Amino acid sequence: MNTQTLQKTFLRIRSNKAFELFVIGVIIFSALVVGAKTYDVNPSLLRLIGWMDHGITAIFLAEITIRFIGEEHKKNFFKQPWNIFDTLIVVVSLIPIDNSDMALVGRLVRVFRVLRMVSIIPELRLLLNSLMRALPQLGYVILLMFIIFYIYAAIGSTLFARINPYLWEDISIAMLTLFRVMTFEDWTDVMYETMEVYPFSWFYYLSFIFLTAFAFLNMVIGIVVNTLEDEHQKERDEEALAGGRPSIETLSMQVDELKALVQQQNELLRDREPR
Amino acid sequence: MNTQTLQKTFLRIRSNKAFELFVIGVIIFSALVVGAKTYDVNPSLLRLIGWMDHGITAIFLAEITIRFIGEEHKKNFFKQPWNIFDTLIVVVSLIPIDNSDMALVGRLVRVFRVLRMVSIIPELRLLLNSLMRALPQLGYVILLMFIIFYIYAAIGSTLFARINPYLWEDISIAMLTLFRVMTFEDWTDVMYETMEVYPFSWFYYLSFIFLTAFAFLNMVIGIVVNTLEDEHQKERDEEALAGGRPSIETLSMQVDELKALVQQQNELLRDREPR
Amino acid sequence: MNTQTLQKTFLRIRSNKAFELFVIGVIIFSALVVGAKTYDVNPSLLRLIGWMDHGITAIFLAEITIRFIGEEHKKNFFKQPWNIFDTLIVVVSLIPIDNSDMALVGRLVRVFRVLRMVSIIPELRLLLNSLMRALPQLGYVILLMFIIFYIYAAIGSTLFARINPYLWEDISIAMLTLFRVMTFEDWTDVMYETMEVYPFSWFYYLSFIFLTAFAFLNMVIGIVVNTLEDEHQKERDEEALAGGRPSIETLSMQVDELKALVQQQNELLRDREPR
Amino acid sequence: MNTQTLQKTFLRIRSNKAFELFVIGVIIFSALVVGAKTYDVNPSLLRLIGWMDHGITAIFLAEITIRFIGEEHKKNFFKQPWNIFDTLIVVVSLIPIDNSDMALVGRLVRVFRVLRMVSIIPELRLLLNSLMRALPQLGYVILLMFIIFYIYAAIGSTLFARINPYLWEDISIAMLTLFRVMTFEDWTDVMYETMEVYPFSWFYYLSFIFLTAFAFLNMVIGIVVNTLEDEHQKERDEEALAGGRPSIETLSMQVDELKALVQQQNELLRDREPR
Repeated sequence: MNTQTLQKTFLRIRSNKAFELFVIGVIIFSALVVGAKTYDVNPSLLRLIGWMDHGITAIFLAEITIRFIGEEHKKNFFKQPWNIFDTLIVVVSLIPIDNSDMALVGRLVRVFRVLRMVSIIPELRLLLNSLMRALPQLGYVILLMFIIFYIYAAIGSTLFARINPYLWEDISIAMLTLFRVMTFEDWTDVMYETMEVYPFSWFYYLSFIFLTAFAFLNMVIGIVVNTLEDEHQKERDEEALAGGRPSIETLSMQVDELKALVQQQNELLRDREPR
Repeated sequence: MNTQTLQKTFLRIRSNKAFELFVIGVIIFSALVVGAKTYDVNPSLLRLIGWMDHGITAIFLAEITIRFIGEEHKKNFFKQPWNIFDTLIVVVSLIPIDNSDMALVGRLVRVFRVLRMVSIIPELRLLLNSLMRALPQLGYVILLMFIIFYIYAAIGSTLFARINPYLWEDISIAMLTLFRVMTFEDWTDVMYETMEVYPFSWFYYLSFIFLTAFAFLNMVIGIVVNTLEDEHQKERDEEALAGGRPSIETLSMQVDELKALVQQQNELLRDREPR
Repeated sequence: MNTQTLQKTFLRIRSNKAFELFVIGVIIFSALVVGAKTYDVNPSLLRLIGWMDHGITAIFLAEITIRFIGEEHKKNFFKQPWNIFDTLIVVVSLIPIDNSDMALVGRLVRVFRVLRMVSIIPELRLLLNSLMRALPQLGYVILLMFIIFYIYAAIGSTLFARINPYLWEDISIAMLTLFRVMTFEDWTDVMYETMEVYPFSWFYYLSFIFLTAFAFLNMVIGIVVNTLEDEHQKERDEEALAGGRPSIETLSMQVDELKALVQQQNELLRDREPR
Repeated sequence: MNTQTLQKTFLRIRSNKAFELFVIGVIIFSALVVGAKTYDVNPSLLRLIGWMDHGITAIFLAEITIRFIGEEHKKNFFKQPWNIFDTLIVVVSLIPIDNSDMALVGRLVRVFRVLRMVSIIPELRLLLNSLMRALPQLGYVILLMFIIFYIYAAIGSTLFARINPYLWEDISIAMLTLFRVMTFEDWTDVMYETMEVYPFSWFYYLSFIFLTAFAFLNMVIGIVVNTLEDEHQKERDEEALAGGRPSIETLSMQVDELKALVQQQNELLRDREPR
């Protein structure tokens, strides 16, 4: 059996709907195994789960091999980030773990197998891509928000560090406290504490809440406007593709043609003017 | 009196506005009875409420019988989910309850009678249907959100179970805790506790909050865009139905007809060209 | 001086910009007086405030008299709800208060004088009217939300009343508790308490949160869509009013006129057909 | 070297991309220095930071001098608010601080250097400007919200001051408490406390929450509608600029021209009517 036929066979397997459903089933099963391990289970079940784990790893290894061999251009395979992710998950699962410290890491890697759900279902992959694409558009709003956080955290840790070092010791802890204030999580406790020393510190909190809420609102509106514009663009493209439907441009051209005809007629009439 | 006339009579009753208002009145009354029972009432009033309960059940039984007999095609009656719901509520109310354990269940069933309000008012039924219809469109976002929850819960219960089993014992309890974190309910208490052991666990919480907030935002925008598109579609359909209003298509046809006329004229003129 | 001229003079005063600004100034001053009274002030200042209060009442009485006499059709005056509101505020302020119990009521009435700000600034009146107009459109969503609250409160007070009567004693207290759960205010404390007795009661809370969040989201989207549609309608009306701008309808009429002209010409040509 | 050439050289430096990147680098460095100072650092590092501080001030002074000399019209320099802000930051940094009380102020001024990030990156400046521009449009909604707050705070401090002076002592403290209620931060604790004395005070809180939520919603919708309208306007302007694309107006003019041609023809034909 030569490589060419092998590749084509594997490409066929890979595009097979049943194969895909089988892999999704294995991923769901591996997710359930990961979930089961968090419960208190008796040792015999734990051993069974261990064997299942090995089986899942084997299936995943087989699947990725099939997909790799089925790929016509081997180089393109690793250009897709999801393929790299899938390979990494399988490779790390293959490393034997004896040490109990590493066992924890091994368990966590197995958790990320659930993410393979995203890599295998095209709709989820699309959704995640569109989420990712929305982020850079909002880059400057996020930068502005970070600057607001940084300035308030610097002021906060300068003024309030002596009052409650647990919340304001240095700039990074202060930023965490400010994030907490932004989520309204017991923010009044934080405020009342500093108001004992600085009675006007309520201005610090209220201005921070207004600024971040306003910036956040702007971000949300930015996303909404972008999304709606994308929709409009898509609509317009579809209309253009539909073709049959005349636009104002084609209508204008029709009228121009008509004008040419009438002008031609006028000349005809003028030529025949009785001398 | 033959069945045919009976059916028609009952159909007339069923379509009667006064009959509908009477049933709505009984439902509101049954809701008030359900509410009254939650207060401390003296035994004589409780007995009265018991009798009222029987009365309401009897009226509901009569009403559903009328609606069933009034239906021309008996099979279609049970095809509508709301009819099944109504029948179920009445049937369960008819079961005599002596045992005190079952009494609780009986009381709860009577609570659901209030939902008959939705089954009888067409506008509410429409609203609920439109809410239901919006759900599957968001299926993939909900699936993505569930995957995020599952992965974080698996990591959380693996790492933090020893710190606070009350919050992180197994994957289902961890998911409940994560839902709490998502609603910002005392989430800092949960975080500070795990930060004592893992100082960098703030990253776990912040990344989770960002991911879920972002996915949730996407869901909301998805609903908004869908709703707006539905509105646009409705508008366009109405315009098309309005008919009288000419579209660019009809305009283009008019110009084409005009062109044909002028061309015809040109030919007329050319034919009469003086030889 | 006859009544006619008096009415016209008063109408002139009422429409005077300076008069309006003076009244706004008095309202702001009365708001400051109301605010000042909440501080601990010494008796002499309190007496001064008392005198100011009488002065403000006198000015308001004069203003409303001017507006009433300035009104051409006396009946129309009390057709505007804001006029009734203004008169009521003034009348109640005139009632002498000696009893200390009533003094509290008197102080509260003076607080509502601040609302006169809304009655006198047209932009605020417009804003409030548009807010009011949005409410009935959402009537059915609000009804649906009330039904959800009622059913959950009935279930909650039936099942959980024994666990914590403070939160679930009867249906009205349970509705208040559910509103608290909807605002995510310490809702986990409420949940963990009932989960001790009914381990599956988390489903009660989560389903409630999802249902109300979904209904609320629907309400918000409803308002957004309504607002956008109003904007579109206004835009279209403006375009129509602008007049100068031709629509597809007028264009179609122009083409029809043109066709009539060409047809007329064709007939002319045919008539002159050389026999 | 005369002033003219000096100005041109400095203008060239100022417009230089590398120079701009260098200044951004210095600002980021100064932000890091500000952050570093909030940590517990040993004295030698603190002295180093002190020297760095002087270096940054020197660079900023040089930069602002270059920008000022590079400006052709010296008067315009101080018309731009960001230039005033930059100059102020540098000037205040130059004031020598010995007193420990003033040292705190000096440190806080250095924090605001981070804001220079906004003044130097055009995109951030644009973003902030658009945020600022959105505020006045919402002026009346903000005024309405303030009136709601003021009335509720006046009522609250009148009725509840005796119950908990810490939360309701005077109108300003009551407004802070109401802001807390609006963010849902432990608002039930505040409510349950006053419900002990006034059992119906839940109405006070619920009506406040509904009113502010509704006004806030209205504000958000206002911003969304404004933003979308701006987008539409921009789109329409772009279409108009694109020029090539004919509008209904130009089409109508074309048809009018055509009509004139045909009418002219009709006259020609009529004139030649065989007598």
